[in-house]
Amino acid sequence: MIIVIKSGVPKNEIEEFKSKLEGKGLIVHEDFGQEYCILGLIGDTSSIDPKQIAAYNIVEKVIKVQEPFKKANRLFHPEDSLIDVNGIKIGGGNFTVIAGPCSVESEEQIVGIAEDVKRAGAGLLRGGAFKPRTSPYSFQGLRQEGLDLLKIAREKTGLPIVTEIMSADMIERFVEDVDLIQVGARNMQNFELLKELGKTNKPILLKRGLSATIEELLMSAEYIMAGGNENVILCERGIRTFETYTRNTLDLSAIPAIKRQSHLPIIIDPSHAAGMWWMVEPLSKAAVAAGADGLIIEVHNDPANALCDGQQSIKPKKFESLMSSLKEIEKFKWRFDISELGL
Amino acid sequence: MIIVIKSGVPKNEIEEFKSKLEGKGLIVHEDFGQEYCILGLIGDTSSIDPKQIAAYNIVEKVIKVQEPFKKANRLFHPEDSLIDVNGIKIGGGNFTVIAGPCSVESEEQIVGIAEDVKRAGAGLLRGGAFKPRTSPYSFQGLRQEGLDLLKIAREKTGLPIVTEIMSADMIERFVEDVDLIQVGARNMQNFELLKELGKTNKPILLKRGLSATIEELLMSAEYIMAGGNENVILCERGIRTFETYTRNTLDLSAIPAIKRQSHLPIIIDPSHAAGMWWMVEPLSKAAVAAGADGLIIEVHNDPANALCDGQQSIKPKKFESLMSSLKEIEKFKWRFDISELGL
Amino acid sequence: MIIVIKSGVPKNEIEEFKSKLEGKGLIVHEDFGQEYCILGLIGDTSSIDPKQIAAYNIVEKVIKVQEPFKKANRLFHPEDSLIDVNGIKIGGGNFTVIAGPCSVESEEQIVGIAEDVKRAGAGLLRGGAFKPRTSPYSFQGLRQEGLDLLKIAREKTGLPIVTEIMSADMIERFVEDVDLIQVGARNMQNFELLKELGKTNKPILLKRGLSATIEELLMSAEYIMAGGNENVILCERGIRTFETYTRNTLDLSAIPAIKRQSHLPIIIDPSHAAGMWWMVEPLSKAAVAAGADGLIIEVHNDPANALCDGQQSIKPKKFESLMSSLKEIEKFKWRFDISELGL
Amino acid sequence: MIIVIKSGVPKNEIEEFKSKLEGKGLIVHEDFGQEYCILGLIGDTSSIDPKQIAAYNIVEKVIKVQEPFKKANRLFHPEDSLIDVNGIKIGGGNFTVIAGPCSVESEEQIVGIAEDVKRAGAGLLRGGAFKPRTSPYSFQGLRQEGLDLLKIAREKTGLPIVTEIMSADMIERFVEDVDLIQVGARNMQNFELLKELGKTNKPILLKRGLSATIEELLMSAEYIMAGGNENVILCERGIRTFETYTRNTLDLSAIPAIKRQSHLPIIIDPSHAAGMWWMVEPLSKAAVAAGADGLIIEVHNDPANALCDGQQSIKPKKFESLMSSLKEIEKFKWRFDISELGL
Repeated sequence: MIIVIKSGVPKNEIEEFKSKLEGKGLIVHEDFGQEYCILGLIGDTSSIDPKQIAAYNIVEKVIKVQEPFKKANRLFHPEDSLIDVNGIKIGGGNFTVIAGPCSVESEEQIVGIAEDVKRAGAGLLRGGAFKPRTSPYSFQGLRQEGLDLLKIAREKTGLPIVTEIMSADMIERFVEDVDLIQVGARNMQNFELLKELGKTNKPILLKRGLSATIEELLMSAEYIMAGGNENVILCERGIRTFETYTRNTLDLSAIPAIKRQSHLPIIIDPSHAAGMWWMVEPLSKAAVAAGADGLIIEVHNDPANALCDGQQSIKPKKFESLMSSLKEIEKFKWRFDISELGL
Repeated sequence: MIIVIKSGVPKNEIEEFKSKLEGKGLIVHEDFGQEYCILGLIGDTSSIDPKQIAAYNIVEKVIKVQEPFKKANRLFHPEDSLIDVNGIKIGGGNFTVIAGPCSVESEEQIVGIAEDVKRAGAGLLRGGAFKPRTSPYSFQGLRQEGLDLLKIAREKTGLPIVTEIMSADMIERFVEDVDLIQVGARNMQNFELLKELGKTNKPILLKRGLSATIEELLMSAEYIMAGGNENVILCERGIRTFETYTRNTLDLSAIPAIKRQSHLPIIIDPSHAAGMWWMVEPLSKAAVAAGADGLIIEVHNDPANALCDGQQSIKPKKFESLMSSLKEIEKFKWRFDISELGL
Repeated sequence: MIIVIKSGVPKNEIEEFKSKLEGKGLIVHEDFGQEYCILGLIGDTSSIDPKQIAAYNIVEKVIKVQEPFKKANRLFHPEDSLIDVNGIKIGGGNFTVIAGPCSVESEEQIVGIAEDVKRAGAGLLRGGAFKPRTSPYSFQGLRQEGLDLLKIAREKTGLPIVTEIMSADMIERFVEDVDLIQVGARNMQNFELLKELGKTNKPILLKRGLSATIEELLMSAEYIMAGGNENVILCERGIRTFETYTRNTLDLSAIPAIKRQSHLPIIIDPSHAAGMWWMVEPLSKAAVAAGADGLIIEVHNDPANALCDGQQSIKPKKFESLMSSLKEIEKFKWRFDISELGL
Repeated sequence: MIIVIKSGVPKNEIEEFKSKLEGKGLIVHEDFGQEYCILGLIGDTSSIDPKQIAAYNIVEKVIKVQEPFKKANRLFHPEDSLIDVNGIKIGGGNFTVIAGPCSVESEEQIVGIAEDVKRAGAGLLRGGAFKPRTSPYSFQGLRQEGLDLLKIAREKTGLPIVTEIMSADMIERFVEDVDLIQVGARNMQNFELLKELGKTNKPILLKRGLSATIEELLMSAEYIMAGGNENVILCERGIRTFETYTRNTLDLSAIPAIKRQSHLPIIIDPSHAAGMWWMVEPLSKAAVAAGADGLIIEVHNDPANALCDGQQSIKPKKFESLMSSLKEIEKFKWRFDISELGL
């Protein structure tokens, strides 16, 4: 951590401030420039809040040097993490596709789609049971019944199931019933929920918040990992920008950015990013080429009559043909080279 | 709702689509332009999801005309709402200031600050007990002990207390102990929490999410109101933009925007918006001039040693002098003129 | 164009307003909903400014239905445009790579790099002569000398040259010397420059502004095309968002979005988007997979000693290996299917 | 400037790199932390491009400590600048309002409005002659004729005139005819134009670009000042964010941010920020309270028939009543306290 002292601050005040910092077990180096005095803190600064340091009147600015996450940090865990979701591997060089409808609607629907996506090569089945909706007047999901139907689909197809959790009181049920627990974008910083999930050992699919930086996403993963659960899979699903043509702006540079900073797998959700079914194909291909560990895609047999998000769902036939070109692109995709870290 | 049909769609497909819509009890008007066919839906469209309509292959785009919120909508409730928080009025022409430290740290601290801000004219006391922090390694608040200290401060000063709730399982305790329950920016779309708060009759302070539109803020208020609790106070606290000099960008145009669309009170948090104590004065003055119903300001007696957010807290003496100029500006502040709605 | 009238406006005021619109040669359809009156304008509305309509007191909101661009619009020109840049084809199914250093520095440098990138398969040579720099104290390019060196490189390699124009008074020189004239992101809405370029018949490479929407980019292309010059190539180079890890956020959904709305070619600049050389590979691969018509990549033989943007330049050897995997990915890239327009 | 070296880099490579930096006349301090080696550069680093340093393979990140602007920097010019625009003072404690129509339309219109706004207390007259419009098919201004009409209005009222320049070839004419030359948001980084304006001694009104940071705005001012023209007035007019209710998001925190970093005056444009006439009043009041040196407001006698931007113009009567409350608020506005710089 680097602390820039305001110009004109008397020497003795700087000394007093240095003593305070040294009292916290840090070594403080002092540099004098033409207009500024700069203090460099050496030692473990992770317990020191830069914003707190900035509250001192004599401080001009505070600059972090080390990333604030540890367990998610590739520096301390250079090899890719490999997460096992009920037998299906995510990360560590594998390429895995999660597919299924936005909402579970009926047994016939979910089992039918599950069979279709399995045939096309999907490794896991997604389906919303509890749905976060902007409007209280929109369909909120089949809830418990949806969960039960997902279990039937798993039984019939063998696909592990992924669904979104909405609050900590659902954890016990989800740990029992679900293979990969999804934390939605709107709950990425629901810290009470993250802490509770950290106490389980279930794989967690953590979606990036609409306006969350990559660092904040990694800090939210750190919440889960700090509690003891290191089975975290990250998901980029589009961020909020000024552009209105697409629902969100898919940030594919998050893939190399995360690969460099963290060992956790990162998958891409092209369906929510664009919000339009015809963009799923180009964005999926781009995600694979950029080195994603997987995709999560909305597939529906009858999008126009879907109970939610029909406009961004593709049909099983389209999904099948997409899967076959993805396999070709995957051969040439970007792969992070650990030697670049210089460890 | 307006539906634009793609060019070249055969007449019979449009007719079939119209019948489907009419089957939902809507009147459908049809207009033919040079390149498009447009359908205008007349009737109550609030149960129809525009994104669902967009899933039909023949649809080019869907345009909402009516706002999707009802209980929060000024059209159906033209007069300002007035929320009573344990005897203190917020909204309806009143100007109310909530002040106090980021975190409750000790009895001496919270009682001392409470006395200071009361003397200066604050109407309510804020103080964090349960703290949402980006890092799991940062101070997480005194939690239950913090709540108990707030109650002592209320007893000694008579100021109603405001503090943030982090999850639905705390509701019972908060309903009993807290006068105004704050929902933080990160939980603005924690819909399970909002629904549960809708079942209480406690005043709720709902903060705008970092990347939430004004419409989404009003939809989150609608979640609480739809459950039966109409005591909602909105709070603008800065949105996330590309500018990095300030922590967030305070969006003061949200004040007139909300006043025109909703009858709910709107208060401003200049401390979190800027993230720097010396900006609290200019932004507070601006907020009052723009017509805010109140402010929520971080005040700390020893910012440099505060356990959180010291850099954005002002001292009691500064707060006192600020309060006296705010009272002067308040006389000339902008006020929404209901006659502009043309009702 | 759809006009929503405020609730409560008397019938006669609406009639008067309708007459005004009809006076402009439009047919006006009128629909009455429960709370609103809606007018649908039929006819050529491209000369009508929606913001001007919104100035009428009785108007609640104005909604555009047709895109405001014509010459750039795929509806009126369904087939892809193919731009010929001194013998090299861009668009229409071709895949073309432009490569070279940020700045032209010396004859040895530019000729050497030109030979390297040609060998690897680049179709055009880029190199900055006149450089837009945020700071007046940064290197501003070799200017005229840089242009002369580019011409030498063209002579020696046969590669057409691309360089950025900074103001209209340079046009004559650029038309004579340069094969593809680049308009930088900062000048995307320098309308006087665009108009003057519209009077030439040189191919123009138009870069998207940092905060320009896709529609605004197409409107800037329309400025050039309306003047008579239809040789416009669009370039996505990252937009400004809240994320700070990357210099900008590369918006690859702009590729399908532009393909659907326009017949103009679209190429991607991964170097400026990320601002980090090690992201050029994943982003280039992603761009090709998503259907880009080409790439513009910064290549430098000695990045650490480059006079500008060294941190985002890759070395010739890296470029060569990248080119060979791009060719493989290109076979499976997304291609826009005209039949989706339903024309 | 602080340079963080990657972990694991051998000592001798760091030494070599240090020598290179020392060769540029800088003193280099070296600190070793647990995981990083950090170099602190002491001396004048303004000629060193951080992005260039980042191109070295051994560098992890580069952190600027000093602001990159000098002439605009308050550290080297603590007192407020006072700009004299043909007898009207802007900055240095004055409060000045510029008012007038978006476009000059006719002699009657511009003279009439000029008289109205003068009576209400405006100090300068604005009016667009050359208009930057997103669409080539929109009204582009009366151009030279508009300039002539502005001069007539100046003659009749004595108000200095402000209008926008679109390209460098207009400078001679503008220097002769115009009192305050406006550089629009879209040209904020048209560096060729800025350089040419730096060679004149005319006051320049420099508007912040839609996605320009405060630092970039100050760097553009620096371009003009570096050329010798220190008569620069800054203008905040709203930035582009994800919020769509308003045309742009007015960033009033730019006022204190700029006051702290620079001695240049800063005025606010509430009309373009919101894009809606009824928001002009609340935002103007807020701007004054936050410490703006002035405002630039669109006033039109017949907004519904204005040739541009009618929806954001207020009528002369409204302007008059607004002016009188602004004078009251101005008494209590925030003022920057130089002693806070600790010089």
